[in-house]
Amino acid sequence: MSDQVLERDGQLTLDIDPDRLLQRIAELARIGADGTTGGITREGFGVADRQARAYLMQQSRAAGLVASVDAAGNIVIRSGAAGEGGDQVLMMGSHLDTVVNGGRLDGAYGVLAALEVLQTFTESGLKPVHEPVAVAFANEEGALFPQPFWGSMAIAGRLASLPQDPCDHHGRPLREALRLAGGDLNALGSAGWPAGSIAAYLELHVEQGPVLERSGNRIGVVEAITGRTVLTVEVRGTAGHSGTSPMKGRQDAMTAAARIVLAAEHLARERRLCRVMTVGRVDPYPNTPNTIAGTVRLTVDLRDTAVWKMADAEEALRRMLRAIEVSTGAEIEVVAETRSDPVSTSPTLCAAIEASADGLGLPHERLPSGAGHDAQVVADIAPIGMIFVPSLGGISHVPQEDTAPDDLVAGARVLLRTALQVACTDRKPLTGHGQPVD
Amino acid sequence: MSDQVLERDGQLTLDIDPDRLLQRIAELARIGADGTTGGITREGFGVADRQARAYLMQQSRAAGLVASVDAAGNIVIRSGAAGEGGDQVLMMGSHLDTVVNGGRLDGAYGVLAALEVLQTFTESGLKPVHEPVAVAFANEEGALFPQPFWGSMAIAGRLASLPQDPCDHHGRPLREALRLAGGDLNALGSAGWPAGSIAAYLELHVEQGPVLERSGNRIGVVEAITGRTVLTVEVRGTAGHSGTSPMKGRQDAMTAAARIVLAAEHLARERRLCRVMTVGRVDPYPNTPNTIAGTVRLTVDLRDTAVWKMADAEEALRRMLRAIEVSTGAEIEVVAETRSDPVSTSPTLCAAIEASADGLGLPHERLPSGAGHDAQVVADIAPIGMIFVPSLGGISHVPQEDTAPDDLVAGARVLLRTALQVACTDRKPLTGHGQPVD
Repeated sequence: MSDQVLERDGQLTLDIDPDRLLQRIAELARIGADGTTGGITREGFGVADRQARAYLMQQSRAAGLVASVDAAGNIVIRSGAAGEGGDQVLMMGSHLDTVVNGGRLDGAYGVLAALEVLQTFTESGLKPVHEPVAVAFANEEGALFPQPFWGSMAIAGRLASLPQDPCDHHGRPLREALRLAGGDLNALGSAGWPAGSIAAYLELHVEQGPVLERSGNRIGVVEAITGRTVLTVEVRGTAGHSGTSPMKGRQDAMTAAARIVLAAEHLARERRLCRVMTVGRVDPYPNTPNTIAGTVRLTVDLRDTAVWKMADAEEALRRMLRAIEVSTGAEIEVVAETRSDPVSTSPTLCAAIEASADGLGLPHERLPSGAGHDAQVVADIAPIGMIFVPSLGGISHVPQEDTAPDDLVAGARVLLRTALQVACTDRKPLTGHGQPVD
Repeated sequence: MSDQVLERDGQLTLDIDPDRLLQRIAELARIGADGTTGGITREGFGVADRQARAYLMQQSRAAGLVASVDAAGNIVIRSGAAGEGGDQVLMMGSHLDTVVNGGRLDGAYGVLAALEVLQTFTESGLKPVHEPVAVAFANEEGALFPQPFWGSMAIAGRLASLPQDPCDHHGRPLREALRLAGGDLNALGSAGWPAGSIAAYLELHVEQGPVLERSGNRIGVVEAITGRTVLTVEVRGTAGHSGTSPMKGRQDAMTAAARIVLAAEHLARERRLCRVMTVGRVDPYPNTPNTIAGTVRLTVDLRDTAVWKMADAEEALRRMLRAIEVSTGAEIEVVAETRSDPVSTSPTLCAAIEASADGLGLPHERLPSGAGHDAQVVADIAPIGMIFVPSLGGISHVPQEDTAPDDLVAGARVLLRTALQVACTDRKPLTGHGQPVD
C-alpha cells in the first residue's frame, strides 16, 4: 500500500464519512418507496429509476465529481482530475434499479458506497496508479425490460446480438426509455470497455442470505458466483372429476409434480449433488378443488459454483423425472430456460479484501454468492472481487430487506481499504479473469 | 307392473321416442355454447340459463303438458289431467344449469329424459297410481350464485336460513335474477314439498367417471352418493432467495405441500381409508422461480360412501399433517370448507332399476356416485333412485363430455320402465329414505 495514506505507526488515516453514506442511503430509499408496504419499486428505466439516477448524478456533481451516462444508460462517475491514474481503472459499483416491491439496499448500497469511496479518494488528493471509477449499472434486475445485467453486459461488449427494438413487458419500446435515461440504442457498442482497460472491479453488496448472520462474521469474501440453471418442467396427466375417478387408473399431474418437488429437494439436501435446487413456482391446471390436475408446470432452479456439479445434478434430476414418468404414467417435458455458468472471483482481490477486514478487526469468511450480480458479467473483461455484509434475517427482494448501520459502514470501509490497495499499488497482474470455475 | 302397458306375451309396448329425445338434447346444447371450445356455459339464473328454461317450458307446452315455476325457480312439469294419480307423485328430473365451459349432458340429459318419459306416459293414456312429475331443479352447480343444489334444497325445505339478500360472485342480487326466472325470494317456503308427498324421486345422469366405460356395463345403478369433505390447508414456511438460502435451515412451504399431496394420495390409494382423496388446487406464494415459497394454500377433497371411513381418513390425514409440521418446521393450518354426508339410495328403487335394465337386456352394475346430485338433497324427503349411463373417456365438466347416443336412449328407456314400475304399482312403502349411510 502506498505510504501516502499511512501514518507513521502503520495506521490508515483515510476514512469514509459514515454519516454521509448513511444519509445518502436513506435519501435514495425514498425514491420509489411504497407508503404502505415500505417496499421499493424502481424498475430499470422506469420513472422512479430515472429519479434515482438523477439523485446520483446530482450528488456526484455536488461532490465535485464528473458523472456521465454511456449509450447503455450506465452512469460512470470519475474524479475529473486531468491525467490522473494510469491507463487502467479501478472500477467499483453496482446498480440502482430494484425488483417490484424490493428493498432499499440490493444494488443501491454498492453504488453509494462506491461513490463514497471515490469521493474520499478524490478529497484525499491521493495520486493512485489506477484511476478509481464508480459505476451504476443500468437495469440489473430486468424487472421492466426483460434483459437483466443490461448495463454490465454493454460494458463487457455482450449486447451485439440484441433484437432490433426490444420492448418492456407492456410492449413499450426500450429505445425511448433509454433515450430518457440519457442512452442511445444505436450506439450501444460505444459503451463497451476494451479488455485490459479495467485493472479490477469491486462490488460491495448485501449478502441476501443467512450465512453471515448465522456465523456472526461481519464481512463475506465472495469466492465465486454460482451458476444457475432454470428448468421449466411440464407434467401432463389426465384431468378428471375428483369424486368420480377411482384412485386406480388416475394420471394425476399434481401427485407427479409433488414427486418432482421432493426429488429436487432430495438431490440437493441429502445427496448434495449441488448447493441448492428449488421449485419456487408451481402452476396447476385447472387448479380447482374438485378436478384432478391435468397439467402442472413448475420451475426447478439449480445452482452451484462448479460446472461439473451443475451438470451432474441436472442429469440426476432428469433420470428421476424419467422414473417418475414411468411410475405415474404422466408425460414430463423439460426445457432449460436459463443457463449461466459459475464465475470465480480473483484470488488476489479476495486476499486484499481479507487483509482489509483484518486491518479493521472485522471477522470474515469466504462464501459463494448464490445470487447473480453485475460482477459476474464484468468478469468477462476484468478480475472481479465482491464484498458481502450481513442481511438481517437473511432476506432480500422484500420490503424488510435490511442490514445493521454498523455493518453498512464496515462494508464501505473494507471497500475503501481494498480499493486503496488495488489503486495505489504498482501494477501487478491480477489473477482469475472471470473464468468459469472447473 | 300394470298390465295396461304389457302385451299378452309380457313384452312392454310403451317406448320413448328416441329421435325426439336426441333432437331435444342437440337443441338444448346450442344454448350457451361457445363457438370456439364447444363448451357450454349456462350459469344458474344467468342469461343462457334463462334461455334454456324457456326452451324447456316451450317444449313442455308444445307436448300438451303444464309447466310452472315455483318460488325457488324450479320448473315443475305435470300432465295436467285433472285428478290423475293419487296423493303421492313420482318425481323425475335433474338440472339445466352448467359449470363454466362444461358439457351438454350433465343435468340437461336427466331433465330432457324426464320430459320424454312424462310425455310418453301422458300420450299413452295410462292411469298411474302415482302422478309422474318432471322437474328441472334451479342452480344445481352454483356457478354464478354460490349456493349449489339451490332448487332441490328449496323443494326439501332447506332454504330457511338463507342470508337476507344473497348475491352472485359479482355482487349482483339473487332477488332480481330469481324474479327474471319466474321465482320469488320472499316466498321460498312455498317451494317446499311436504314429507310423504313424493313416492319416489328418480334421476338419470351421465356417470362423469370411467367405471362403466371400463367394465363395459351400459347401466349404472347408484347405490349411494358419496359424502364429501373439502379441507383448505395453509402451509406457512419462510420465503427466501432460492440462490442464497442454503438447503439446511430452509422452511420451504412448497416441499411441505408436496408431502401433503403425496400423503393424501397414499391414504386413499395404498391404505384405502376412503374411496378418493385429491389435492386439486395448489396456490403457492409468491410463486416465482427464484424465491422459496413462503406460503402454499391447497385443498384436499375427500369422499366416501361411509361416514365412519370419511372420519377415519380425515383423522389419519390430520395426523400426517402434524408429522409433516414437525419434520419440516412449517406451520400447517386446516379449515373444513365443506362437509356433506353420504346418502344411500332406496334398495327397492335399485332393484326396480336393475329389473328394468334386465328387461331391456342391458348389462348393469351397482356403483356409488362420486359426484353430488340433486337426488342427495331430495333424499331428505323421499326415497331416491339414480341411473347412470357411461361417460366417454370418463370425463365431465369439460366441453368433451359425451355419451354414445345408444346409451342415452338406453338410459331413458330404463328410466321409463322404472317409472312405470313405481308409478303404476299399488302403493307400497319404499325403503331407504335418504338416511346417511352407516
